Amino acid sequence: MCNSGVSSGWELHPQLARDTIAIGDLTLSRVLLVADANYPWLLLVPRRSGLVELLDLDEADRAQLMSEITRASRGLKTVTLCDKLNIAAIGNIVSQLHIHIVARRRTDSAWPKPVWGLPSRVYDPADLDRLVNALHCELVAD
Amino acid sequence: MCNSGVSSGWELHPQLARDTIAIGDLTLSRVLLVADANYPWLLLVPRRSGLVELLDLDEADRAQLMSEITRASRGLKTVTLCDKLNIAAIGNIVSQLHIHIVARRRTDSAWPKPVWGLPSRVYDPADLDRLVNALHCELVAD
Repeated sequence: MCNSGVSSGWELHPQLARDTIAIGDLTLSRVLLVADANYPWLLLVPRRSGLVELLDLDEADRAQLMSEITRASRGLKTVTLCDKLNIAAIGNIVSQLHIHIVARRRTDSAWPKPVWGLPSRVYDPADLDRLVNALHCELVAD
Repeated sequence: MCNSGVSSGWELHPQLARDTIAIGDLTLSRVLLVADANYPWLLLVPRRSGLVELLDLDEADRAQLMSEITRASRGLKTVTLCDKLNIAAIGNIVSQLHIHIVARRRTDSAWPKPVWGLPSRVYDPADLDRLVNALHCELVAD
């Protein structure tokens, strides 16, 4: 969480803070793990104030976000060996721009449906620690 | 539909063809309108064979896709004056890489839920003609 720069005036939306565990910061985005043991599920939240749509980013930030989506997707796939990635910017409930990257398995509880709006499941604390550490090492540690 | 180049060996997945109306081709992607009158709903399908994940695109194509997502999102917003855009790459059922760009209104039948997996509604033919023409002019006509 020590990257400098882009966050002036930016604050993570309280509902996103409540529903997630922080993994770390990339150049533009904060990386969060959604607290739902049904699926390894990341959020990328660009640390710029007032963003709602992808269109609200300037071109350089949009390119940076695509690069960070790629990095996070690759890392999540490496850590989870998932069958499919689901990537989305929805924001109908929490408007602060956030990108979902969900590691899906053909055996998960929602497959093949999307995961939004379904009941969540609490992580076993040891499993959560292992996953957070693995994601931190893969995605944000230098 | 006259752009040259990227399509060698590529074919649109039959289910995507069945569920949509073609709007036209951008440099990389075919633009389709989903035949569901509940929400103006575009698909972008990069015309490269064998793509499943965003990660399967090379870096230049990923940048081009982000540029086309931006163009299509802006055009869809201009044409529909929607309240929110929902953008996603899911592909759990049809694996051929396709990007959803959905124009949402706070008054639409699914709001605030995502649109996937819900019953569709048939377009009035005149409304469909008008929308397809407006999208074609805004998104793909030079």
